[in-house]
Amino acid sequence: MTVLLKGGTVVNADQTFRADVLCQNGVISAIGPDLEAPAGAELIDAGGQLLMPGGIDPHTHMEMPFMGTVTSEDFYTGTAAALAGGTTSIIDFVIPDPKQPLMEAYNLWRERAQKAAADYAFHVAITWWDDSVHRDMETLVKEHGVASFKHFMAYKNAIMADDELLVQSFTRALELGALPTVHAENGELVFRLQRELLKKGITGPEAHPLSRPPEVEGEAANRAITIAKVIGVPIYVVHVSSRDAAEAIERARSAGQRVFGEVLPGHLLIDDSVYRDKDFVRAAGHVMSPPFRSKEHQAALWHGLQSGQLHTTATDHCCFCAPQKALGRDDFTKIPNGCGGVEDRLAVLWHHGVNSGRFTPNEFVRITSANAAQIFNLYPRKGVIAVGSDADIVVWDPTATRTLSAKTHHQNVDFNIFEGMTVTGGATHTVSQGKVMWADGDLRAERGAGRYLPRPAFPSYFPAQ
Amino acid sequence: MTVLLKGGTVVNADQTFRADVLCQNGVISAIGPDLEAPAGAELIDAGGQLLMPGGIDPHTHMEMPFMGTVTSEDFYTGTAAALAGGTTSIIDFVIPDPKQPLMEAYNLWRERAQKAAADYAFHVAITWWDDSVHRDMETLVKEHGVASFKHFMAYKNAIMADDELLVQSFTRALELGALPTVHAENGELVFRLQRELLKKGITGPEAHPLSRPPEVEGEAANRAITIAKVIGVPIYVVHVSSRDAAEAIERARSAGQRVFGEVLPGHLLIDDSVYRDKDFVRAAGHVMSPPFRSKEHQAALWHGLQSGQLHTTATDHCCFCAPQKALGRDDFTKIPNGCGGVEDRLAVLWHHGVNSGRFTPNEFVRITSANAAQIFNLYPRKGVIAVGSDADIVVWDPTATRTLSAKTHHQNVDFNIFEGMTVTGGATHTVSQGKVMWADGDLRAERGAGRYLPRPAFPSYFPAQ
Amino acid sequence: MTVLLKGGTVVNADQTFRADVLCQNGVISAIGPDLEAPAGAELIDAGGQLLMPGGIDPHTHMEMPFMGTVTSEDFYTGTAAALAGGTTSIIDFVIPDPKQPLMEAYNLWRERAQKAAADYAFHVAITWWDDSVHRDMETLVKEHGVASFKHFMAYKNAIMADDELLVQSFTRALELGALPTVHAENGELVFRLQRELLKKGITGPEAHPLSRPPEVEGEAANRAITIAKVIGVPIYVVHVSSRDAAEAIERARSAGQRVFGEVLPGHLLIDDSVYRDKDFVRAAGHVMSPPFRSKEHQAALWHGLQSGQLHTTATDHCCFCAPQKALGRDDFTKIPNGCGGVEDRLAVLWHHGVNSGRFTPNEFVRITSANAAQIFNLYPRKGVIAVGSDADIVVWDPTATRTLSAKTHHQNVDFNIFEGMTVTGGATHTVSQGKVMWADGDLRAERGAGRYLPRPAFPSYFPAQ
Amino acid sequence: MTVLLKGGTVVNADQTFRADVLCQNGVISAIGPDLEAPAGAELIDAGGQLLMPGGIDPHTHMEMPFMGTVTSEDFYTGTAAALAGGTTSIIDFVIPDPKQPLMEAYNLWRERAQKAAADYAFHVAITWWDDSVHRDMETLVKEHGVASFKHFMAYKNAIMADDELLVQSFTRALELGALPTVHAENGELVFRLQRELLKKGITGPEAHPLSRPPEVEGEAANRAITIAKVIGVPIYVVHVSSRDAAEAIERARSAGQRVFGEVLPGHLLIDDSVYRDKDFVRAAGHVMSPPFRSKEHQAALWHGLQSGQLHTTATDHCCFCAPQKALGRDDFTKIPNGCGGVEDRLAVLWHHGVNSGRFTPNEFVRITSANAAQIFNLYPRKGVIAVGSDADIVVWDPTATRTLSAKTHHQNVDFNIFEGMTVTGGATHTVSQGKVMWADGDLRAERGAGRYLPRPAFPSYFPAQ
Repeated sequence: MTVLLKGGTVVNADQTFRADVLCQNGVISAIGPDLEAPAGAELIDAGGQLLMPGGIDPHTHMEMPFMGTVTSEDFYTGTAAALAGGTTSIIDFVIPDPKQPLMEAYNLWRERAQKAAADYAFHVAITWWDDSVHRDMETLVKEHGVASFKHFMAYKNAIMADDELLVQSFTRALELGALPTVHAENGELVFRLQRELLKKGITGPEAHPLSRPPEVEGEAANRAITIAKVIGVPIYVVHVSSRDAAEAIERARSAGQRVFGEVLPGHLLIDDSVYRDKDFVRAAGHVMSPPFRSKEHQAALWHGLQSGQLHTTATDHCCFCAPQKALGRDDFTKIPNGCGGVEDRLAVLWHHGVNSGRFTPNEFVRITSANAAQIFNLYPRKGVIAVGSDADIVVWDPTATRTLSAKTHHQNVDFNIFEGMTVTGGATHTVSQGKVMWADGDLRAERGAGRYLPRPAFPSYFPAQ
Repeated sequence: MTVLLKGGTVVNADQTFRADVLCQNGVISAIGPDLEAPAGAELIDAGGQLLMPGGIDPHTHMEMPFMGTVTSEDFYTGTAAALAGGTTSIIDFVIPDPKQPLMEAYNLWRERAQKAAADYAFHVAITWWDDSVHRDMETLVKEHGVASFKHFMAYKNAIMADDELLVQSFTRALELGALPTVHAENGELVFRLQRELLKKGITGPEAHPLSRPPEVEGEAANRAITIAKVIGVPIYVVHVSSRDAAEAIERARSAGQRVFGEVLPGHLLIDDSVYRDKDFVRAAGHVMSPPFRSKEHQAALWHGLQSGQLHTTATDHCCFCAPQKALGRDDFTKIPNGCGGVEDRLAVLWHHGVNSGRFTPNEFVRITSANAAQIFNLYPRKGVIAVGSDADIVVWDPTATRTLSAKTHHQNVDFNIFEGMTVTGGATHTVSQGKVMWADGDLRAERGAGRYLPRPAFPSYFPAQ
Repeated sequence: MTVLLKGGTVVNADQTFRADVLCQNGVISAIGPDLEAPAGAELIDAGGQLLMPGGIDPHTHMEMPFMGTVTSEDFYTGTAAALAGGTTSIIDFVIPDPKQPLMEAYNLWRERAQKAAADYAFHVAITWWDDSVHRDMETLVKEHGVASFKHFMAYKNAIMADDELLVQSFTRALELGALPTVHAENGELVFRLQRELLKKGITGPEAHPLSRPPEVEGEAANRAITIAKVIGVPIYVVHVSSRDAAEAIERARSAGQRVFGEVLPGHLLIDDSVYRDKDFVRAAGHVMSPPFRSKEHQAALWHGLQSGQLHTTATDHCCFCAPQKALGRDDFTKIPNGCGGVEDRLAVLWHHGVNSGRFTPNEFVRITSANAAQIFNLYPRKGVIAVGSDADIVVWDPTATRTLSAKTHHQNVDFNIFEGMTVTGGATHTVSQGKVMWADGDLRAERGAGRYLPRPAFPSYFPAQ
Repeated sequence: MTVLLKGGTVVNADQTFRADVLCQNGVISAIGPDLEAPAGAELIDAGGQLLMPGGIDPHTHMEMPFMGTVTSEDFYTGTAAALAGGTTSIIDFVIPDPKQPLMEAYNLWRERAQKAAADYAFHVAITWWDDSVHRDMETLVKEHGVASFKHFMAYKNAIMADDELLVQSFTRALELGALPTVHAENGELVFRLQRELLKKGITGPEAHPLSRPPEVEGEAANRAITIAKVIGVPIYVVHVSSRDAAEAIERARSAGQRVFGEVLPGHLLIDDSVYRDKDFVRAAGHVMSPPFRSKEHQAALWHGLQSGQLHTTATDHCCFCAPQKALGRDDFTKIPNGCGGVEDRLAVLWHHGVNSGRFTPNEFVRITSANAAQIFNLYPRKGVIAVGSDADIVVWDPTATRTLSAKTHHQNVDFNIFEGMTVTGGATHTVSQGKVMWADGDLRAERGAGRYLPRPAFPSYFPAQ
């Protein structure tokens, strides 16, 4: 299949220029002024529009069993919604139960992902330790292209990693050239605060942020970063939500350590007053961990992205519908944690990031695709519009305006944390693997069209072994 | 017994003034110009000298069983040496073995301390947890005047406290009005680094600082402080040795948290090159935890004391002689950890602190006695020269010069980390409980003259319950 | 005259204890339990009340000519209001016009102050430079007990000091043992912003904070502190109002520099929304420099006082009535800058500082009198309840509640920035120079009873020359 | 002319890949595997070597009159030396005398630069102000492609810019879309310290660093950055040499401000002990401003480059030979300030930056060319190996070892601050404008071959007007 994007302006992380882009056989075959359309090519008029690398969302949870239920979005619906929003790749998570063999979990998730409409990769979580885990990590890296491992420092009595496990796994990751990532919250403190709040009879969603204050995140981030420093391995902190965690990252980077940080649009824009909403559905709909914070934290996150001390944006797309959220109606600790956003990320960030003057369009590309591709070793296959790269392109109309809503979004969930937000700037077309999957409101996602993206170990920034 | 100090200049934390000081029945009974000597009073000519509150060393380990041996200094020899240096009170540690009932350990230590020549109090370490510990903490606070508890975050597989234990103990301390204190080093990382160094064949004292880098201390300090913040209890960090830990304290204080920090003279003045001394005896003689650091850390500690973000000075007096240190000749992890200094603290700090212009004499009093007395709730019985206070006074000659050495010190140990250091400023007399215990080189310490100092709970800075 | 305060609890900066306090001939002659009342003594029942050192306000402007008018409060009315609120000493400012001989201005201000009802001292501003200024600084220090000099870094084309002047004056202050103080705002930037706002037609009080953003203060504080560091002289920053300036001070202190910071209650509690009040009188009533800030800055100031990185509280009492403020009705740069508060400081700080748990009563004393006395070398004459100290005592009822208002205050101004604030804790009696000047709502201030307080040079913290 | 680079590995800021590179008519015409050599093409075997964008040195002073003499390196010799080291573009400075019309100075410098062997651009210094300066800035930007202006905050009584001038010039630069840059040292303090040292009889080069301590730089950087923030214009700080200045930049960036910082290799690697060399020639040979610093500052600079808070590397190439330096033999303030390095920069940074593991080769490209090109709006003409870009390429042998020395360098100066440093990694060939100018030790620089590089205003990161 051949697609020719005519008359647009290419925006990469390093520069902006006028050019046509030709996509053939899934890759970009030519970039330049006034390209001739090959016979049979589909033409897209990109006049007045921007051509940017398709978004990469490095943090999603499609059809994940969690807290007694399963996320409402499966790999097909989730990646289709992503395409509607201009995101053409996701990195999801394999999360073994404690004691479950890693390869078993990995195979299960690969099976589930067969139905994906867009390309995907996997991080694998390390939730327990024995010799088989040590061995399977090598198999995953060398035979399956898994180049990053995840560690949950929260969720005591479930998947929480203690310091001993972090030390073991980070050490192994260093040997293998794979990047350790962490969900940074001190699970011991969260557990204690949850117990205390319940004991006091504070059982609703308003207790959620009280049980996970910013300090709890800052502490865990600082701890994981220190462990990584002592071991000598780079580290990536997912969903940095607080000034506390952002400063922990900044301190380490200012001491020369290689630390990466990820931010969610929700943490940039939504504050913790949502948990005090009288309507349980709305309050519970916002329950995710780490929670939304008071406004002062938002500034720290914006500034971190601006200064380059934070690097990527993701969504932690992890959807539960109202009946699922209702599992925690009498006990906030039982509300399934998670919110959606894979479809909305680009538009929300463009509106609040570029239109506000915080980022240049080039910087927008950096934080929505290029940095993720480089950190997770998908670059330059992904994250740049260049000859030879995958033809994953979003055609962006900086003047298009629409209002985000669960009523109109393509995400398979009955709630939208950005409900009612009007944004200017949006995808008119999304090209994935060289095919037009979204065109002027028409979603053409194909079940199973997505491919697994194996990622080589030892990205350029990794210390050689 | 009556002692009249004539012609000196009183230096308290808040002011300096010329006055005579009369000591009767163990307390200060009068302060003023030209006091009359009561009949039978011993007169001390303090002309040209300073009268300061006797030093308080809030961190000592007399006759402590540790790492397969026992510290060489017992409560008598240790407090006698303290008196020779102008220190009139110590706070030592009761350290129960895991599973040992707290009260049993407490009683054992009280028994040992009967022979002390100067007044003493105790912190009790929390090294394990069950209902009896929870109960005994209350008994200790309410019936025995123990107002502070210690937690070791290092020493894995021995007395290390994990986060769960810290949370439990800090919570209990808050209820009881007792101050939690921590030895801040991430024991998991220390353990791993020790194993790694031994595996590489690096077995000598030079490995000691490599196994306990500053980051490991900074992390633990940050973690303990965060736990204290979430629980809402003040916290005291012992032997802050690194910029990393000092900055963790400073960050917390700058956010309004009540955190106290303690510094040892050794960490202010000795750098880690000592561990690379070819002579095992000298290198091992400096082995303590946290270790001495590179010079840049020293500046951070001085500055912390100057700015008031660090508060007390102590010695962690914990002596082992050469044959004891030799236990670790083939394995640095077996070198008994500890160094002396209870006798030298005041002179070393005066010389390097006051003579250098860093501190005023008033500030010297603040960091050598007044702050410790206030934090550990011994004030104004200790820590100030005032009518009604205990007559614990050091008569200080700011011009006296001497050279510190194991050959001449009164400490019962064959090593001195300040060996060969010439200092100007020293105690000509030490008055303890109103008696002259040290006079112009004559040590008159009495075995058993020291008293146990019970301390009330809920010091003024504590949140009311 | 003799006054005996019976049954109260003495609160000093270092301790709290139950005692009676006897005041004779203007000084405290005895402190102790169950003191006998001498014949003719006035007895005050202080049962259930606290006895604290009278407040010291180190920053006031009584009857000062400024911006074309004169502050409404003269030395009598101002000090009388101070006494009603528990403040027994002020330090006011002599501000020579550029080219005016310092001694001429000094004599003029001394003359004005003859009518004061409470004790007072003076800082002298250095607003220009020539040999006479150099010479007069010495005269003021050595013959008149002026131990501090003030520098305005704002007010371009008026009294602004540029870097060259700061260097000259700080150098001279160092030689003389006098403390330099600064009003820290970059006058060049303020000037430009004022011009720009007026040009845009933004002429009302809402422009005031826009013309003096926090950065402008942070920059000037940082600059003055650096100049002091290079010259080697301590420095005191008046009315620290922003996180920016507080952090500049904290950075310097963390590097071992001796820097002091002063905070006004208004900056702790009032935010910049007041300038957007539609009522010109209310908006203009809050116009002072630096302006009130957004709420995030308040936390930084509270924390600075809590951590000890900021030291004193003052009011910058500088009152103008509505007709005076109206001078700037059409041009916000002409609104006379200044607000009152000398009467309200203690009550406001007790309520929001002690009742909130931020400070202990001892710390309250530290920031309302003891620190100011020590920094400005009035201690222990002022700032402590001790035998021999001036009998300046406030009897404090921690349960008394009242609502602050211009209608009921004793300050000679028609506006109160704390209008309507209900506070718990207040002065039932104020003893000044051993006389009861305020008793249960009865103000007995005497015109001319106040004395000039000469202050010796070279306070204890000053480097010796 | 046609050059084909065969068998090398292209290293750009964003990626590394194996490819041949074809240069035709001064630009890169093709990049790809196994390119055919056009007829007549010069072939260079780059097997085992890296192909990187030619270095850009954004801070040089060729044939500049300064301190009574003229830099020894003219535009021809200087750019020739640059080519020998792999640097293919410089940005030099036009420095008008106070009162000299800008255009006059600009024309003079353009005339001098005619003889350059490599491409060059100009910053223009703003050293005074009147309407003509205001007007000429526009002419320079709009008609001559000058897109950045320089301000010296030091050099009192010569070219020093005070705050008023900074405000005026920055405001104008904002309107014009040109980047303001600053030499950050508080000239008032430097002046005072110089006078003081001379008065004390400290007249040799050892006084130089004492007269310009790090605080003086940190203050000025902080001030310039604040002025830029208030005005709303991006800012670039040249030759950041101290932790103090690096932290000022970092603080501003962490608050979301767009600030760029430049570092010289000398400041990364040479410490201030050089000024205490007994040999005047060696000591004076290192005299430049800001001076080399104590070692702790070096870490801050490396870390700033690593974390991305500092951006470019330059040399401030400003050469004076021994007889010129001797002008200050009796008075260090008369030693012409400046050191060389335009030839050595790449090799020194590769050796100490890449070989040490601090930077990846991609990051090396970022800090030696790509960032400078983007900040100064020369990208993608310069700073990247891409089709259409100028054919400025350095062929880099990462295994080549040589020892730097004045005896062997091509710089026209008798001194080398890196004398005796052995480095691994160096340029085997330098291609400039598509011609081989340096080949295996053969320097083929052509007098006058260099072109002036006009730069458009309003780089992408600039706020739109």
